[in-house]
Amino acid sequence: MGMAEWEHTPWDVRMKGFARRSTVEEVLAWLDTVVRPLDQETVPLDFAAGRVLGQDVASLVDVPGFDRAMMDGLAVRSADTLGATVYNRLPLEVVGEALPGRPFSGHVGPGQAVRIMTGAPLPVGADAVLPAELADIHSGQAWAHGEVPPGKHVGRKGEDIAAGTVVLRAGRVLRPQDVGVLASIGLGHVPVIRQPRVQIVITGDELLPAGAVPQGFRIADSNGPMLAALVRRDGGVPHSAGIIPDQPQAILDAMRSPADVVLVSGGSSVGQEDHAPLLLKRHGELVFHGIAMRPSSPTGLGRLEGRLVFLLPGNPVSCLCAYDVFAGRAIRAMGGRSKDWPYRRLRAPLARKISSAVGRLDYLRVRVVDGQVEPLAVGGASLLSSTTRADGFVLVPPDSEGAPPGTEVEVFLYDCPWRL
Amino acid sequence: MGMAEWEHTPWDVRMKGFARRSTVEEVLAWLDTVVRPLDQETVPLDFAAGRVLGQDVASLVDVPGFDRAMMDGLAVRSADTLGATVYNRLPLEVVGEALPGRPFSGHVGPGQAVRIMTGAPLPVGADAVLPAELADIHSGQAWAHGEVPPGKHVGRKGEDIAAGTVVLRAGRVLRPQDVGVLASIGLGHVPVIRQPRVQIVITGDELLPAGAVPQGFRIADSNGPMLAALVRRDGGVPHSAGIIPDQPQAILDAMRSPADVVLVSGGSSVGQEDHAPLLLKRHGELVFHGIAMRPSSPTGLGRLEGRLVFLLPGNPVSCLCAYDVFAGRAIRAMGGRSKDWPYRRLRAPLARKISSAVGRLDYLRVRVVDGQVEPLAVGGASLLSSTTRADGFVLVPPDSEGAPPGTEVEVFLYDCPWRL
Repeated sequence: MGMAEWEHTPWDVRMKGFARRSTVEEVLAWLDTVVRPLDQETVPLDFAAGRVLGQDVASLVDVPGFDRAMMDGLAVRSADTLGATVYNRLPLEVVGEALPGRPFSGHVGPGQAVRIMTGAPLPVGADAVLPAELADIHSGQAWAHGEVPPGKHVGRKGEDIAAGTVVLRAGRVLRPQDVGVLASIGLGHVPVIRQPRVQIVITGDELLPAGAVPQGFRIADSNGPMLAALVRRDGGVPHSAGIIPDQPQAILDAMRSPADVVLVSGGSSVGQEDHAPLLLKRHGELVFHGIAMRPSSPTGLGRLEGRLVFLLPGNPVSCLCAYDVFAGRAIRAMGGRSKDWPYRRLRAPLARKISSAVGRLDYLRVRVVDGQVEPLAVGGASLLSSTTRADGFVLVPPDSEGAPPGTEVEVFLYDCPWRL
Repeated sequence: MGMAEWEHTPWDVRMKGFARRSTVEEVLAWLDTVVRPLDQETVPLDFAAGRVLGQDVASLVDVPGFDRAMMDGLAVRSADTLGATVYNRLPLEVVGEALPGRPFSGHVGPGQAVRIMTGAPLPVGADAVLPAELADIHSGQAWAHGEVPPGKHVGRKGEDIAAGTVVLRAGRVLRPQDVGVLASIGLGHVPVIRQPRVQIVITGDELLPAGAVPQGFRIADSNGPMLAALVRRDGGVPHSAGIIPDQPQAILDAMRSPADVVLVSGGSSVGQEDHAPLLLKRHGELVFHGIAMRPSSPTGLGRLEGRLVFLLPGNPVSCLCAYDVFAGRAIRAMGGRSKDWPYRRLRAPLARKISSAVGRLDYLRVRVVDGQVEPLAVGGASLLSSTTRADGFVLVPPDSEGAPPGTEVEVFLYDCPWRL
């Protein structure tokens, strides 16, 4: 859309906002119907931690694959220790040694024993391990001074994992020990749900690329690196083509990058330079535009040739909020993760009253001071620094006018104890 | 140490365990005295999320660097709107247009106005923005039908961040929005605390590399990939040289890799093949060996030529436990992170009694079922699958003999809502 077309758009449409705002609930309900986990791919074990398992994994092998010693001592025939005490030491002939990975190749006969280390295969003929502290051992001779029943201190073949057992179920976010278990059953490559590829399209002729020093009437892009970090947190793979000029064709081209999800930052509203909603309407599907929430009301959602498209406001706080309420949820779900907020939650009383307009969801930045929730006295959606001063946020539902001091509220905490 | 030397070590030293076990508290106290955050490095903004800020960062610029419109409408001299109502529309001459990044270059004189978009620089001469809904605008002419005081709908230069302000403090684990703020002040590279380099030394002649199918009397290494994932989770950079043969020189060479921390898995006890403690004693410092805890009692800690060395038991559950209680804490602290467990916590009552020996810390794997904590009935430290069936663990302190059903306990949850 050029200036000419803009001139022919009635002023009240261009600048007087949205005819009707959708509710956050409507939008989430739509997202939940259209978003499905992506297909699977296979990754090497070393890259599997934190990924989402794509299918149930059953073991093809027993772990361990053999009976093994669980103590250091002597592999014995338990019958040979029957009645042994410190007052009645029973002799054993030491016929060899068994180490982990280096088994005793012979057979343990009556009256015989094999020195054995924890983890070593139990020799044929032996049925128990006599712990070192129940034996006196010299070169080729030993005396048992305690008894062991059959199976004592022996780890049975398959006791950790029996062949055929499902060790982990589809949908599991793989923990470090899960990766260990997959290694133990011999899995070198792991079937996982593909990570959503997310194209980040930053628009705005006033923007300098992130990393540049703002100068004159230009400001540095802050949404690009913020969105990339959010996408990574939620298990997506962000891609960016830098700053896209405020030109419809350039924006459309960028939106058509290979991707599962497109995040367009800036130009999402109904103003003169807001090309993205019209582009989506013309070339794809603009399902929602204008949402009853603050900030982020000029958010749009739709689809373009198989891609899920989020039109996020350029104001950084609105961008963060709209990402978190809508895009992050979709990206997590496409990657097979929980739709839920990834934030830790805290319930605590309000230190001061909060006010909110009925009919919209309010996203209030707050601090938690001495166990109480303090709303930050902040103005517009442009003050990104307010989200770094905040410890988290409170959501005030559309049917609420706010709440008096002392009301217990749920805070979503921004901090993340895990590496991103 | 070869077989010959082993033969000359008294049997009771070799196989009868530790003369004295240190307490977990002693070990943690020592760690806290020797572990310090590492030095700083600089990383590009795109890699800064989740890293730990190395120093306070102050802004050299105002953000925004100019007064700007916070609404779409007309940039005006507020005095010109004084007394305007729908019944008393006041005329304004529209002399131009201001867009974000494309300012109006002229001067707004008395009776004049400039069409302006949100985010555009306020033109010289104007002192307020008259929102579109308070004006009727035609090509070169407009009428105000509402009034605005000076400064209305204007975002002041520096209102987000004033030049000189410290925007983020040293030690901050950078959140997505923090990276946005750093971008907005023009920071292209970020000073962060260096990530600990962690050498993972897996020993055991019985081991096949992770990814290989276990066969015969050999088992697949599970500790290597598990430890690598744990190290990444805690902000370290894992390095591995594969499986190291059970030969003292090979193990010593691997321990001498360039690293801040060395994790040796296997051969940590006092048995025949347990070379690492002796190597550490001989070439470095073996500060602790044998700890009053279960599992993981054959854990060792020490130093080797500037590296912090952890000798972790080869049994996978012991390895996980010893990593989590000692090594993870040190790695997090070296990277400038909180020493605390990264696990979410839950308080819930015991479904069944738990028993524990006085004098040692017990690490009990548990499930949380219907809001109650069920200890897993598991045997030895070799059953890694028990940690994948568990939802988390409970720590039973050394002075406790256990607890009856119904006792409220704190569970550390294994699940991680964040991508690793």
